[in-house]
Amino acid sequence: MTGVDLNADLGEGFGAWHLTEDDALLEIVSSANVACGFHAGDPSTLRTVTAAAAARGVAVGAQVAYRDLAGFGRRFMDVTADELVNDVLYQIGALDAFARIAGTRVAYVKPHGALYNAIVHHADQAAAVVEAVRLFDPSLPVLGLPGSEWLRQSEAAGLRPVREAFADRAYTPEGTLVSRREPGAVIHDPDEVVRRCVRMATEGVVTAIDGSEVQVRPESLCLHGDTPGAVEIGHRVRAALVEAGVSVEAFAA
Amino acid sequence: MTGVDLNADLGEGFGAWHLTEDDALLEIVSSANVACGFHAGDPSTLRTVTAAAAARGVAVGAQVAYRDLAGFGRRFMDVTADELVNDVLYQIGALDAFARIAGTRVAYVKPHGALYNAIVHHADQAAAVVEAVRLFDPSLPVLGLPGSEWLRQSEAAGLRPVREAFADRAYTPEGTLVSRREPGAVIHDPDEVVRRCVRMATEGVVTAIDGSEVQVRPESLCLHGDTPGAVEIGHRVRAALVEAGVSVEAFAA
Amino acid sequence: MTGVDLNADLGEGFGAWHLTEDDALLEIVSSANVACGFHAGDPSTLRTVTAAAAARGVAVGAQVAYRDLAGFGRRFMDVTADELVNDVLYQIGALDAFARIAGTRVAYVKPHGALYNAIVHHADQAAAVVEAVRLFDPSLPVLGLPGSEWLRQSEAAGLRPVREAFADRAYTPEGTLVSRREPGAVIHDPDEVVRRCVRMATEGVVTAIDGSEVQVRPESLCLHGDTPGAVEIGHRVRAALVEAGVSVEAFAA
Amino acid sequence: MTGVDLNADLGEGFGAWHLTEDDALLEIVSSANVACGFHAGDPSTLRTVTAAAAARGVAVGAQVAYRDLAGFGRRFMDVTADELVNDVLYQIGALDAFARIAGTRVAYVKPHGALYNAIVHHADQAAAVVEAVRLFDPSLPVLGLPGSEWLRQSEAAGLRPVREAFADRAYTPEGTLVSRREPGAVIHDPDEVVRRCVRMATEGVVTAIDGSEVQVRPESLCLHGDTPGAVEIGHRVRAALVEAGVSVEAFAA
Repeated sequence: MTGVDLNADLGEGFGAWHLTEDDALLEIVSSANVACGFHAGDPSTLRTVTAAAAARGVAVGAQVAYRDLAGFGRRFMDVTADELVNDVLYQIGALDAFARIAGTRVAYVKPHGALYNAIVHHADQAAAVVEAVRLFDPSLPVLGLPGSEWLRQSEAAGLRPVREAFADRAYTPEGTLVSRREPGAVIHDPDEVVRRCVRMATEGVVTAIDGSEVQVRPESLCLHGDTPGAVEIGHRVRAALVEAGVSVEAFAA
Repeated sequence: MTGVDLNADLGEGFGAWHLTEDDALLEIVSSANVACGFHAGDPSTLRTVTAAAAARGVAVGAQVAYRDLAGFGRRFMDVTADELVNDVLYQIGALDAFARIAGTRVAYVKPHGALYNAIVHHADQAAAVVEAVRLFDPSLPVLGLPGSEWLRQSEAAGLRPVREAFADRAYTPEGTLVSRREPGAVIHDPDEVVRRCVRMATEGVVTAIDGSEVQVRPESLCLHGDTPGAVEIGHRVRAALVEAGVSVEAFAA
Repeated sequence: MTGVDLNADLGEGFGAWHLTEDDALLEIVSSANVACGFHAGDPSTLRTVTAAAAARGVAVGAQVAYRDLAGFGRRFMDVTADELVNDVLYQIGALDAFARIAGTRVAYVKPHGALYNAIVHHADQAAAVVEAVRLFDPSLPVLGLPGSEWLRQSEAAGLRPVREAFADRAYTPEGTLVSRREPGAVIHDPDEVVRRCVRMATEGVVTAIDGSEVQVRPESLCLHGDTPGAVEIGHRVRAALVEAGVSVEAFAA
Repeated sequence: MTGVDLNADLGEGFGAWHLTEDDALLEIVSSANVACGFHAGDPSTLRTVTAAAAARGVAVGAQVAYRDLAGFGRRFMDVTADELVNDVLYQIGALDAFARIAGTRVAYVKPHGALYNAIVHHADQAAAVVEAVRLFDPSLPVLGLPGSEWLRQSEAAGLRPVREAFADRAYTPEGTLVSRREPGAVIHDPDEVVRRCVRMATEGVVTAIDGSEVQVRPESLCLHGDTPGAVEIGHRVRAALVEAGVSVEAFAA
């Protein structure tokens, strides 16, 4: 029997502000990418989300980001490698305190937003995030885009790279994501999203934007939690996977 | 042979800004109260200070504070107990990441500034900080003012309270600190500071502002690191203690 | 013909986060209390809200607050008077830049959250906010609770105090608000809210929680924008006022 | 008689932290680039520096920056043009409140750090800062590097571009600054700094790093306030200029 992980971003509020439907998403995902305070995530939100994830057996991942609350971590920042190593360590450590008191541990690391995008290509910043994870705990798996600098360097450093694919994003024939600036970059039809997820999980293949077939072989599928209807689509994806004989389980279990 | 701990606040810069002479102070103290990012302390400073402390065998303490960079944690904030528990956990966890990669651990907790002052009397906030330490690691000693709500509740919760006295502060006959708003609250004469430290460490006694003798029996003496001449005074205090047969050693060793 | 102002808090998002339904509220109110960046309100939100308010002829007020994004300005902070004067000046000045480029000006000042509550009684902080307004522009009206230190000191300083009443809050027989910790503090029945608003606007009277009648004589009625159904209730209040022959108009017009 | 402006960065502390010797620098410069809160500059510092500058007749400039306290505005941030326009407006408006209560106004705008460097070439960000200044007050001069996108676009938009040269930086034969990563980028010899300043002010010429002569024709000379000996060098530069018959006066007077 095949298995796949489902991950989504959680805990992306701050103080009075809320963004992600954390409780509803925890019924769907096997891995929760928890915001650690730099782009979102006040300490009380970290506490609540981490406890809820632990109670449900959902793996807690550190969703590390640039220090940019005003920009939600979505703006590239030209931080030095030294700064970035330490910013990432700080965030993982903070989240780990909440994970531990909930009876679990930070189980993996997934960069957020502009940092995620930057380290697809930016070798120095990729190396910095790798170094932070290695220093904190070299047994932690790391989640990212297949073919990225981030996953390549993680593997070279002895970390366990985990390939993810996106439930609702269009792919180029080369297996990279179609830029959000291009038409058709995001797939809005729920039926289509569900079908693609099942096919990626069972066959490892997705249809690219030009109609060709691309091998993506994801170990984890990323659901977006901040789009309208996200929870409903998430439930449908999970149900369809189970129906197709795919077990939804955390890669970091 | 008698022993006493010497503690001081370290790492109280932020980014481009520096406040404490960390390297010089690490030659003097046995315990470093390291700022954790809420009143001061960017991640790179945490990394540097923690590594330097570990390399010298100086105990690393979490100097937890209200979230108030603009006010340097010196302004009382009426945060709820829940918020405070989680704010403190976040800070300890973040610092602990740096302590661990330096081969050590957070060895104790000391509240900073307005939080330190508040939990002398504020039962709910004291309880919140106690709860945070207990949740993180109930074996951690906590540093504070004898007779404070903070130390009383820590003891009741099974934590190890550690009494500190201040090298350069005047005491009332009741053994509390003379308010900084009163004349004579701070002792500026280095000779006097040195004499008082030796007497507190050897006899457990300090002369109060009215000339009476007060029992303080400190396990740790707090040196201020941000006053002019602080490093010079610190060296003299340490030398005088050693000369008086008092060993300077961390309580949390 | 009688007139009354309707005010509500607007622009209380930050970056990716949104809280208040700004566009919908601008169809209802005559005065917009715009968050200035210290408890909420990134610059782009200030720009958008201020432009929309100006376009509709809604008066732009500076909703000044403690510097506390994580606590949404809802936690008392023991800032000094000097700090508070300058924090308030900074916020008014920042908002005024956006008001001016929208062809208007900051038309009044209303403190937010914990600061609003503090300066009902806290004489030093009340004096600081008064001083900030006086320094910025002594012709600016200030909005607050009748009988508060804030309005008393504003009047004494030559500012124009504007009395507000709350659409959905219960009153004591003395004309103060029933604490939110008490049962019945918030009135949830929309019909009741509407009736009270009309009576306060036409007769200046509200029924207190013990059934007695209280004189409140409001010049402005505060609608809450962050409760479920707030927009719907706001529309009903406005319609009922108009129907009762009360014109809704800004006090600062 | 020839005149030149002397400018330096001031008010670059935050809360408990200080960086620039503001009082000493105000005895030297004719234009103070005042930090506005995004990379440095709490409101009380803005108040103090602005009042002191106004009292001495020193022009107050808005030293606008990316929102990056932890990085002191020294890290490029890929903010959108819309965000940047509004971030700059917010900062100018906040500073202007303090300038006005000190009896003056924001007299010019100079970007700081990474933003200064970015808009030498980054057309979109340069356009955004230009747009912010134009919206706030199109009569404001703007200070920058000759040949930069920033000055070119400012001029095209009808703003008044003011060319600055750096007292202690080496120049390429093309008139651009030698990168700080290159040897010899910063001139440390005070005598040399003084000689170059006088020559730039009187002849408009500086000797490039290869020995060739470069036309820079500065209207303002930038002194660095955060290097050791900065105040001493500043005094010498000013005295030498006066001795050479150059009057030191603000371009924005």
